[in-house]
Amino acid sequence: MKKFAISNPDIKIYETLVDKINNLTKPKGSLGYLEELALQIGLIQQTLSPTLKHPQNVLFAADHGIVEEGVTLSPKEVTWQQMINFTQGGGGVNFFCRQHNFTLKLVDAGVDHELPYEKGIINMKVRRGTRNYLYEAAMTEEEMELCIERGAAIVRQCYEEGSNILSFGEMGIGNTSSSSIWMHCFTNIPLDKCVGAGAGLNDEGIMHKFKILKKSLENYKGNGAPLDIIRYFGGLEMVMAIGAMLQAAELKMIILVDGFIMTNSILAASKLYPDVLDYAIFAHCGHESGHKLLLEAMNAKPLLDLGLRLGEGTGAICAYPIVDSAVRMINEMETFQKASIIKYF
Amino acid sequence: MKKFAISNPDIKIYETLVDKINNLTKPKGSLGYLEELALQIGLIQQTLSPTLKHPQNVLFAADHGIVEEGVTLSPKEVTWQQMINFTQGGGGVNFFCRQHNFTLKLVDAGVDHELPYEKGIINMKVRRGTRNYLYEAAMTEEEMELCIERGAAIVRQCYEEGSNILSFGEMGIGNTSSSSIWMHCFTNIPLDKCVGAGAGLNDEGIMHKFKILKKSLENYKGNGAPLDIIRYFGGLEMVMAIGAMLQAAELKMIILVDGFIMTNSILAASKLYPDVLDYAIFAHCGHESGHKLLLEAMNAKPLLDLGLRLGEGTGAICAYPIVDSAVRMINEMETFQKASIIKYF
Repeated sequence: MKKFAISNPDIKIYETLVDKINNLTKPKGSLGYLEELALQIGLIQQTLSPTLKHPQNVLFAADHGIVEEGVTLSPKEVTWQQMINFTQGGGGVNFFCRQHNFTLKLVDAGVDHELPYEKGIINMKVRRGTRNYLYEAAMTEEEMELCIERGAAIVRQCYEEGSNILSFGEMGIGNTSSSSIWMHCFTNIPLDKCVGAGAGLNDEGIMHKFKILKKSLENYKGNGAPLDIIRYFGGLEMVMAIGAMLQAAELKMIILVDGFIMTNSILAASKLYPDVLDYAIFAHCGHESGHKLLLEAMNAKPLLDLGLRLGEGTGAICAYPIVDSAVRMINEMETFQKASIIKYF
Repeated sequence: MKKFAISNPDIKIYETLVDKINNLTKPKGSLGYLEELALQIGLIQQTLSPTLKHPQNVLFAADHGIVEEGVTLSPKEVTWQQMINFTQGGGGVNFFCRQHNFTLKLVDAGVDHELPYEKGIINMKVRRGTRNYLYEAAMTEEEMELCIERGAAIVRQCYEEGSNILSFGEMGIGNTSSSSIWMHCFTNIPLDKCVGAGAGLNDEGIMHKFKILKKSLENYKGNGAPLDIIRYFGGLEMVMAIGAMLQAAELKMIILVDGFIMTNSILAASKLYPDVLDYAIFAHCGHESGHKLLLEAMNAKPLLDLGLRLGEGTGAICAYPIVDSAVRMINEMETFQKASIIKYF
C-alpha cells in the first residue's frame, strides 16, 4: 500500500501556546473546549497565530453489495439520486457549505450508476459498488489500493488549492453496515452494540441487519490484519476517505471528522498510522446507535451533540464555526497586560 | 411593575411546519435538534419560511454590593475595566460578534464607575452597584422597576432597528452569587448545589461564598414572592435582562439564552410570565457548577456543551450558527418530490 509520512506535531511550542491562551482577557480556562482547540491547531500549524484557509468538504459516494441482503430501508438508487440532488444544491450538505463557505467536492468512489460528471462530480469510480461481503471480500487488494491513492490525490489537489482544513463526508446506502463491522473488529465492542438503525430501520430491521453482519463475520476467512478487515468489509467511499485522511495528516492539514461512518474511517486509518489522530477534530456525536460508544472507545471528545445522523459531512461542517471561534480567540483577544486589567487569577 | 403582553405562539401552523421539515431530502429526523429549532422558530414567526434578521448581543453590566464580603476572586474593578476592553474590541464577546455579524450593545446598568459613554456604552445606570444583600435588599422597588423598564426600552430599540433575534450577556463581578440565590429560591435545589467557582474560586473560596449566601438567605425577611426575591438578591444587570427578555417575548423575537447568569434571568422572568420560555433557545450548558442542574430543572435542552463559563453572551453567540443552520435547512433544502428521490421512509 502507498506509504504516508505522518508524524506528531513538534511540542516545543506547547508552553508558549498555553501562555498566550492563558493571558487573554478572560478567566483562565473559561473558554473551555475552544482553548483546547486553539492549542491543538497551534501545534498542528506550529504557530501562535493559526489560520483556517479555504475549507472544503470532500464527499465520497459509493454503493454496497451487502444491500442485496435487505440491510437498509432505502434502495441503493438513493445513492446516485442524492448525488444528483447535491449537484443541484438541494441537499443537507449544500446549505451547510454555503453557510460556512466550504467548497464541496463530490467524488464518485464507486456508485453503481453512470453519474453526470459534466455537472462537477469527480470521477474516481473504482468499481460499480462493492461485492457482497456476506459471501466474499468487498474489494480486491488492487481496488483497495486504488481507493487509497485516489483519496490521497484529491487531498493533494485541495492542498494545492490552498486549503489547510478539510471535512470528509459520505453518501452510500448500506455504509452503516460496513461501519458497524469495522467498529466491532477494531474496538472489540460486541457487534450488537455497533449496529443501529441507519437511515431509519425499525427494531425488526435492525435485528435482520445484525444477523446478516454476524453471519458475514462468521463467513470471513481472512487474516484479521487491519488492511484485510478494511478491504473485506469496507465501502469504496470509506476506504477512499482513509486515503484522504492519511494524506491530509501527512500534509499537516486539520481533519474535521463527521459522523458514524467517517469516525470509523479515521479509526481504521489510525490502525495503519496512529498519529493521524493528532490532526483530527471530532465534530459531533451523532444519533446513529454506536457512535457514542465508538467515540468513547477512541477517547474522542466531540464538539457537538445535536442528534444529527445525516452524514454527507453535515455534522463536520456544522461544527466548523466553533473551530473558527477558537482560532479567532487566540488571534483577536486582548491580553490582560495590554488591556490594563487586573488579572483574574 | 410594567406589564407585558406575552402569549404562546399560535399552533395552527404546527402540522404544516412538520410536514415541510419531514419532506426535505434527508431521512426523517436525521438533522436532529436542527429540526426542532426550525419548528420552534417557524412557530414564533408563524411562517414556513422563517428568517433571522440583524442579530444583536445586548450586554448588561453592573456591580454587586455582596462583593464586599469576599465572595469573588476578582476585585469589582474588573467590571469597568472589562467594559473598556469591550469598547476597544479585545474581549471574548467582541470576536464572537465579529465572527457572526452581531451588533454589540454595551449597557451600563449599574457599574460602580463613571464609564466613557462617548465610546458607545449606553448609559442606563440605575445606581452605582447594588446594596449588600447580606444586610439589606440589593435594590429598592423603584430601582427594580427602572431596570425592567430600561431593559425593555433597549429591546424596543433593537426591534425598531430590524432585529428579530437577540442574545443577552452580562459583565458583573459577583453576579454568580446573585444567580445562585435566585436558582435556589426558584427551583428549590439545595443552595450548596447552586454555588460554584465563578471566575476561579478554589474550594475554600467556594465554601466561604456558600456561607455568605446562606447567611444572606437567613437574614432575608421579605415575603418570598418572585418579584421580592428578584429585587432583594438581584443584580441590576440581571434585572435589566429580565425586562429585556420579557419585552423580546412580547415582540415575538427569538431570545438566545447564554450561561449561568442569563439562564437565571430567564428563569426569574418565567416566574413572572411563564410563556417567555416559548421564545427562548438555550444556547449552551456552561461549566459553572449549577448550570447543568438549572437547565435540567427547567427542562431546557442546550445546543452546546463546550465547557464555556465566560458570560458576556459568548456562549449564546457561539451557538448562533446552529440556529442559522436550522433556518437555512427549512428554507434551502429540496423536497423529495422536487428532487425526484425515492423517499427514505
